[in-house]
Amino acid sequence: MKTDPSRWQPVAGNGLLDRRAFLRSGAAVAAAMSAYTLTRAAAAEPLADDPWSTVPGATVPDYGVRSRFEKNVVRTLSNPKAEPRTQHARTPHHLLHGTTTPNGLHFVISHAGDPDVDPDRHRLVIHGLVKRPLVFTLEALARYPMVSRVSFVECGGNSAPMFSREPIQASVQALHGLCSCAEWTGVPLSVLLDETGIDPKAKWLIAEGADAPALSRSVPMTKALDDAMIALYQNGERLMPGNGYPMRLLLPGWEGNMNVKWLRRLKLVEAPAMSYYEARTYAPILPNGKAYQFFFLQEVKSFITHPSFGLKLNGPGFYEISGIAYSASGRISKVMVSADGGSTWAQAALQEPVLSKAFTRFRAPWRWDGGPAVLQSRAWDEAGNAQPTRAQIVAQRGQARGVPPVTGFPSQHYNGVTSWAVERDGEVKHVYA
Amino acid sequence: MKTDPSRWQPVAGNGLLDRRAFLRSGAAVAAAMSAYTLTRAAAAEPLADDPWSTVPGATVPDYGVRSRFEKNVVRTLSNPKAEPRTQHARTPHHLLHGTTTPNGLHFVISHAGDPDVDPDRHRLVIHGLVKRPLVFTLEALARYPMVSRVSFVECGGNSAPMFSREPIQASVQALHGLCSCAEWTGVPLSVLLDETGIDPKAKWLIAEGADAPALSRSVPMTKALDDAMIALYQNGERLMPGNGYPMRLLLPGWEGNMNVKWLRRLKLVEAPAMSYYEARTYAPILPNGKAYQFFFLQEVKSFITHPSFGLKLNGPGFYEISGIAYSASGRISKVMVSADGGSTWAQAALQEPVLSKAFTRFRAPWRWDGGPAVLQSRAWDEAGNAQPTRAQIVAQRGQARGVPPVTGFPSQHYNGVTSWAVERDGEVKHVYA
Repeated sequence: MKTDPSRWQPVAGNGLLDRRAFLRSGAAVAAAMSAYTLTRAAAAEPLADDPWSTVPGATVPDYGVRSRFEKNVVRTLSNPKAEPRTQHARTPHHLLHGTTTPNGLHFVISHAGDPDVDPDRHRLVIHGLVKRPLVFTLEALARYPMVSRVSFVECGGNSAPMFSREPIQASVQALHGLCSCAEWTGVPLSVLLDETGIDPKAKWLIAEGADAPALSRSVPMTKALDDAMIALYQNGERLMPGNGYPMRLLLPGWEGNMNVKWLRRLKLVEAPAMSYYEARTYAPILPNGKAYQFFFLQEVKSFITHPSFGLKLNGPGFYEISGIAYSASGRISKVMVSADGGSTWAQAALQEPVLSKAFTRFRAPWRWDGGPAVLQSRAWDEAGNAQPTRAQIVAQRGQARGVPPVTGFPSQHYNGVTSWAVERDGEVKHVYA
Repeated sequence: MKTDPSRWQPVAGNGLLDRRAFLRSGAAVAAAMSAYTLTRAAAAEPLADDPWSTVPGATVPDYGVRSRFEKNVVRTLSNPKAEPRTQHARTPHHLLHGTTTPNGLHFVISHAGDPDVDPDRHRLVIHGLVKRPLVFTLEALARYPMVSRVSFVECGGNSAPMFSREPIQASVQALHGLCSCAEWTGVPLSVLLDETGIDPKAKWLIAEGADAPALSRSVPMTKALDDAMIALYQNGERLMPGNGYPMRLLLPGWEGNMNVKWLRRLKLVEAPAMSYYEARTYAPILPNGKAYQFFFLQEVKSFITHPSFGLKLNGPGFYEISGIAYSASGRISKVMVSADGGSTWAQAALQEPVLSKAFTRFRAPWRWDGGPAVLQSRAWDEAGNAQPTRAQIVAQRGQARGVPPVTGFPSQHYNGVTSWAVERDGEVKHVYA
């Protein structure tokens, strides 16, 4: 099937092409891409053998490990010597593709390292305003009906550097690396609460982890009875130690810190506990002097991963602009992309399946003419929410007091637009546009 | 919302409950499960601290590794000393959950180990009956439009032990571990063939790997132009060495051996090459004396992973029967489950999203009365194909000449039913029923 040539005409300024150029591929795409200039005529047969084609390879291991050539694809660590404070490990979105975050690269925040939990000894207690307080072993949980869902988890503090007064020159990993997406499998919390019974006075539950700080957060019962899960598996295998092994609370789309890891207790109560994180960290002071508290949704957001800071463009011609969009309010309905700093926009293609509260990969074909360009993406969700511009969210929430490192509040729940400037030499800079 | 109590009544023999019991959960499910007997009343507060709750945990690494308590969740190896013959590494389906196979546990077959390919030196050549033979570097491929899709890959020889005359007492890993499922991201092959152009005489292409045996297979151009992909990423990160790093041919749903790993060459030709694997291994002799050749689809199939051989049931009561279904012909449309060896059947719930040519997790609620039971699953796909019984496929393809190890043909493309007998002591045996 040949594609209508009009489909690869520019549809927005600075070389953005129609996303329908991707449909059914076709020679028209190839022509539009001019990627031929990147390749060379094939050598005469027979092909010369590379060294690895002439010797037996490595023994297949019982648990696969990555190629040694990928050793630089790692999470960046905020506290690699494990000093007595929080450790952050950020996902390298600019080096990944698709929508799944592999387990080794899922972001982690641990406030006292990753506890070495023995799954046979670990217990989950559900008590408080219940009819029958119960203790669950991992073996007992395995008897209950399970459910799987693909869900992103995002720290409320992800993208905090975007509140700084000047654009920090840093990669998408440094700016937005505290969110990841995986297939989680476990027992719906509603099933376990049916077992314990619920006292009608219960309006919240306090979830507590088995880490040394016994991190706790208050969760409304409405969420607990909606899509909350006691997650036991992450992308098919048991949870990673940094992601809560052997069990965590999964609250799809809600603030990462509430998805309590190494979960050991759920206590049903009448009112929130006002724990450290909900009373201090996730209660930033707004410009109007009020605390921004008990707002749990990670709202509609997107950012471009390819190209982005740290990736260099190798001369003019065709590129695919690609990134990630997600929302706690459901499916992504639309992503628009600009190559001229927001003056004109083209609709991006969304990779199917588009799942609720999950990463959605968007793509837009782009022919770079070699001149300056400013790339942006903006997402909408099925509930009708639009990702704000940076100016809009800064007006609402205020701006950080310092330029890097960011000091003071606000530093939570940034979901505004990110802008990448492509310079004539192909370097990518972070700008506010 | 309360569930209609009728929904947890038995709907088939030997304790199979209505799958709609899973909908919206509800107290009815809990009642049906009687899993309460597995738990115990919660201890008085405060909870006693486990040792890992009293000390700082491990330093968060830049690439996460599994808990030491999961060290037995591994692939089984057919040739762990890498003697000069094929190595197989099988996926432990009975120890996993959901539909994603984590990269470390994806099945691998390597005929001379896993080559240590340098991605900067590796090249992909497309030549033969093309208008412009071309050489692609990894950098060049990164400029093209990409696509992601979740797809299973299955060895044509998966489940070969099912052709043996007596049921081999072995786990689902040993019987069916040569299939896995991942999110693959890469460049549609049709896009690259638009770049090279296609001579109308080309009806096949020969795909060749960069491993020492230079494994090659012939692929019809119809598949190449349909949904074939040059896969570069596996569950978000670069391919694993055993799965073709840095690039493989992905032919969704087709015989695993054709999904050529470490891909270095695609040569467009008029007729198949009659290479070793297509002329010998994947051309078994049928009972009528003809060779079963050039049949590429991995047809509709399912097997129960929980419970299965090697997992013991801990007393009567509620269990979830859970397994995997997939088909090269599209989406799974229905899975039926039996607890009485096929006399009566109940429809299983399918975990959404149900994707074409991907693992689909099915689940059926079951109340085991403690007596003998024989568990089976049978799948249908959207093209109307039904998974055959074992008797049906053995009648078509013949039976192995030996009892374990299987010797001689047939040993390819078994997609019949698997039966697990649950004995009174909770042990699970493999039976033919």
